[in-house]
Amino acid sequence: MTDRPLEIERKFLLRKLPDLEHVPSVEIRQGYITAPQDTTEVRLRQSGEGHFLSVKGGAGLVRSEREVTISAQQFQLLWPETTGRRIEKTRYKGQLPDGLTYELDVYAGSLERLFTVEVEFPSEANANAFSVPDWFGKDVTLDKRYRNKSLAVADHETIKALLNG
Amino acid sequence: MTDRPLEIERKFLLRKLPDLEHVPSVEIRQGYITAPQDTTEVRLRQSGEGHFLSVKGGAGLVRSEREVTISAQQFQLLWPETTGRRIEKTRYKGQLPDGLTYELDVYAGSLERLFTVEVEFPSEANANAFSVPDWFGKDVTLDKRYRNKSLAVADHETIKALLNG
Repeated sequence: MTDRPLEIERKFLLRKLPDLEHVPSVEIRQGYITAPQDTTEVRLRQSGEGHFLSVKGGAGLVRSEREVTISAQQFQLLWPETTGRRIEKTRYKGQLPDGLTYELDVYAGSLERLFTVEVEFPSEANANAFSVPDWFGKDVTLDKRYRNKSLAVADHETIKALLNG
Repeated sequence: MTDRPLEIERKFLLRKLPDLEHVPSVEIRQGYITAPQDTTEVRLRQSGEGHFLSVKGGAGLVRSEREVTISAQQFQLLWPETTGRRIEKTRYKGQLPDGLTYELDVYAGSLERLFTVEVEFPSEANANAFSVPDWFGKDVTLDKRYRNKSLAVADHETIKALLNG
């Protein structure tokens, strides 16, 4: 279980894809049991061979997040409750020259051609001082439309707008 | 797992407590990960030595309900997410003279002195034709304030009103 009060992350679109040939990746599918407007977020995720249930509660800056490991069977039983609120993506986890880790998501299905990259920082000062690589595109950190729980329920028109940046 | 589309149940307050000496009972504690106004209900329940996570989705007459068994450890890890939305009760499961099963809940904690009894019917016709025992009180089937997810977040004033019927 992880129980972290606050993540300091920035999220960007991509200007161009970096060379991913030697970057380790994992297939992820995730679905939301709750709706985007609900006060709590309950998410199922399969990442490679691992299965997880996570809960995000609270509001504002300090949101709690808990993740528990579940069995493949528990995952299968609950998965139908996420119908219409799912995402599939391949996540590449690589390193930037300054040592920071990036997570590059290549979306599939109705979100094909959407790519995002996230970087997590040890402090807010680090996040603000981040020297953005030239292959990064628009900063969408504060754009709620790019949150996975929003993407999971996005309609055709919204997706079209998102793909055009 | 159970996956039942619709339960036909009636819920009553009690006029007086029946003799429960030989009626089997179980200690239940349950908490809600979601808030009452959320579109989906995610509930944790410990019933005796068993631990469960259930999801109720959809709206209107046909609501889906799924329940999966979870481990004591999974329960403990997720339980903190139900803070402020919990109920404790002792559930007695007995039989009425006509063979129907009743579930009588004796609430504890801030809901002490609240008692409800529920009967599940095989069909709507059965539910309407039910001959109500004399120890049953007011029919609160349609009163949302008596739903467990409402009781779990009820404030002092609301509880006082509920205890007075």
